[in-house]
Amino acid sequence: MQAQKVQMAGGSVRKLLRRNAHGHVANLLAKFRSADVATIITSLTEPERVSVFSILMKRNRALAAETLNDLGPERGLELLAPLKSNEISEVLQELETDDAAVFISALPDQTAQEVLEQMRVDASTDVQGLLQYPPETAGRIMTPNVFFLSEELSVSEAIHAIQTAEDLEMVFYLYVVDDRRHLVGVVSLRQLLMVPPSTPLKKIMTTNVISVKTDTDQEEVARQVALYDLLAIPVTDPENKLVGVITVDDVIDVIKEEATEDIFHMAGVDVHDHVYTPVRTSVKRRLPWLGINLVTALVAATVVAFFEPTIARFSFLAVFLPVVAGMGGNSGTQTLTVIVRGLALGELTWANSRTALWKESMVGLANGLAMGFLAGVAAYVWKANLILSLVLAGAMIINMFVAGLTGSVIPLLLKKMDVDPALASGIILTTFTDVTGFLSFLGLATLLLHYIPVS
Amino acid sequence: MQAQKVQMAGGSVRKLLRRNAHGHVANLLAKFRSADVATIITSLTEPERVSVFSILMKRNRALAAETLNDLGPERGLELLAPLKSNEISEVLQELETDDAAVFISALPDQTAQEVLEQMRVDASTDVQGLLQYPPETAGRIMTPNVFFLSEELSVSEAIHAIQTAEDLEMVFYLYVVDDRRHLVGVVSLRQLLMVPPSTPLKKIMTTNVISVKTDTDQEEVARQVALYDLLAIPVTDPENKLVGVITVDDVIDVIKEEATEDIFHMAGVDVHDHVYTPVRTSVKRRLPWLGINLVTALVAATVVAFFEPTIARFSFLAVFLPVVAGMGGNSGTQTLTVIVRGLALGELTWANSRTALWKESMVGLANGLAMGFLAGVAAYVWKANLILSLVLAGAMIINMFVAGLTGSVIPLLLKKMDVDPALASGIILTTFTDVTGFLSFLGLATLLLHYIPVS
Repeated sequence: MQAQKVQMAGGSVRKLLRRNAHGHVANLLAKFRSADVATIITSLTEPERVSVFSILMKRNRALAAETLNDLGPERGLELLAPLKSNEISEVLQELETDDAAVFISALPDQTAQEVLEQMRVDASTDVQGLLQYPPETAGRIMTPNVFFLSEELSVSEAIHAIQTAEDLEMVFYLYVVDDRRHLVGVVSLRQLLMVPPSTPLKKIMTTNVISVKTDTDQEEVARQVALYDLLAIPVTDPENKLVGVITVDDVIDVIKEEATEDIFHMAGVDVHDHVYTPVRTSVKRRLPWLGINLVTALVAATVVAFFEPTIARFSFLAVFLPVVAGMGGNSGTQTLTVIVRGLALGELTWANSRTALWKESMVGLANGLAMGFLAGVAAYVWKANLILSLVLAGAMIINMFVAGLTGSVIPLLLKKMDVDPALASGIILTTFTDVTGFLSFLGLATLLLHYIPVS
Repeated sequence: MQAQKVQMAGGSVRKLLRRNAHGHVANLLAKFRSADVATIITSLTEPERVSVFSILMKRNRALAAETLNDLGPERGLELLAPLKSNEISEVLQELETDDAAVFISALPDQTAQEVLEQMRVDASTDVQGLLQYPPETAGRIMTPNVFFLSEELSVSEAIHAIQTAEDLEMVFYLYVVDDRRHLVGVVSLRQLLMVPPSTPLKKIMTTNVISVKTDTDQEEVARQVALYDLLAIPVTDPENKLVGVITVDDVIDVIKEEATEDIFHMAGVDVHDHVYTPVRTSVKRRLPWLGINLVTALVAATVVAFFEPTIARFSFLAVFLPVVAGMGGNSGTQTLTVIVRGLALGELTWANSRTALWKESMVGLANGLAMGFLAGVAAYVWKANLILSLVLAGAMIINMFVAGLTGSVIPLLLKKMDVDPALASGIILTTFTDVTGFLSFLGLATLLLHYIPVS
């Protein structure tokens, strides 16, 4: 129902824009949550998107800022591009520090510098504080506005502190610190309600707090929050001082981003490439990977070239050549996917990898036997040539076994070498399966040449 | 540091098992959170895993249940297999209803029936209530133990209700219902603290509650929770009566599961296939997809067979044949991945698909021009045959343009037809790019046959 309303609003906004009814556009959009406004804006054309955003900037800056945030830096930058740097400052300082930092770091250097200079001093200092941490670490994605209480307080004092604090919408845990801001405990809101008001926080707090360091990788942060079913995780500096907090909604974004990254990397696509990326940018991002593929494909092709005399005599070999190579690639990709995802989810580690290796090699062999048999029968029905059938079956068995073996070894080795296994495994694997496929099929054929009747 | 402790605990458990020091094993594990115990158990061998679980079953049933839950049904079933049905009942009734339902539905039918009969009546009724909803819907994954308050209450009465309620660890929102349990509003815990105790709930509640229906797909549930940054989402029946709640930790599991499903489906792997699946099961699950691939590969091969006379005369064509087909496949897979992920994340819909289609075709064409040029140059350097170079370049341009077009049309059409685009797109695409690659390369070569000098 909400989805329907959102869809209809897109049409209404378009009509109102044509009539220049800017006030009506602002009023209509104010009835929606920012995430819905983001959906509505996405359904418009580029000039419409820019006008709607400038209307919101003038008439409802808070909604403009939240919508921008929901659109994310990829789609949001397009809306910021036509603005002056002081306007960008005004809209970004409406955001949480971590969200503002995302946009600042996505802006061109010159603009980012100007925007920071024109923001309120406190907001600018906070953002610059986050930007000193490397991208994709806890320090970079945390919000420094963490709510904490002294361990010396009583429950009633704690409740008073909550009541008088500002900007506390997303408080789930109350972190307790000592007099030097070291993180010493955590209390839930509900716990406060369950005990007499005079109880000291020290007495009800949990001291075994799960936390991360500022330099913890965001993927590890997400893993911990998911593993322990947390709503937020505190971030501490090297001296265990509380410096920020990461909430579960940001963790969900990280999980989605990391999954997208794995899916994209396996297909050789940049993680920032998406449906709305301009043609020129997409081409520039995808060409390098295609170029590497072309080189490896040509390298594999030299194997075929080596056997040209055999093919010249038995041209039907060319018919089955792509079948052998392709089936190895398909089977290897199955293995690769299971291994890469197992590594990403932490189910598979170097320590317990031997079982996986053995298993995948056996799966490859078994699949090779089954597919080799079927392909051999099919080839015999088609060409009535027993030697060809045997060569085809043999090559497929060899190639699919090698595919299972290399499909598991390659990502494990890459992980060991600290290279993203999702990114590089596929291309190395298909080079292996192409070469093995060509070599085993044409090699076997050449060996058995004398027995093959020319068809 | 925690990770290190967990790793060391694996070794200690192993030693204690060898000494039959069951009490010590239980004491050691009791110091960890269940998620860590799950990690420790995973690092052991199968017989060790089974012994540790049976020790926990006897000495710390609550921890056994939580650990089982953290392991998930795939790895958990192995631990339940050696147990009698009454033991399974005892451990499952320690779990939240939604979690118990996951295990019950994964058990063999006969066992599931026995386990349900031996559970406490209330637990069994709750689980059966969830099992009546189809898998992967909100009704199936919700917990029916939702905390709600009557709209007639005051804030102080609400606080009293919270203080006296049991099992309330994960309460983030207080749902407000009318006298027939229709969901009418929501109040946050913090809001209760901010107003005078005599305030009626009606006055402070938000009436525009985001909720889902029992038959909403779990992927849509996850999308809404992520979109609106929620900690929990209430579930209502067709009459808008509140029947359950889904919390963000379950949503995180859904997001991960759906991402895994997309990654696996794109490679033709069953979502339940993972690193620890037995060889026989993996083979059985992967063979059908490989079989379909073999058939489509053989179909594409008939195109090559049609041109056998050409290949017999110009055997070097066989060298470049896999290059043309492969590069089309690679380029198309890039497009496919961006489109499939765009559909999964809701960025792309049928309505705004025309732009995407146009864009991807242009990207394919541009990439084809670049790669065709490079491949043409490489072939000329290698074989010094200008006609061959032109044929290769032309075929690659045609194939990569078709790849961009079909790579975006196929998933959109499948989505429109309610078929999972991640599952079927890849195989249809590679069949297209194989056929187009073979046809354009060998077709152009045959057309220009008279101009090609036999090398």
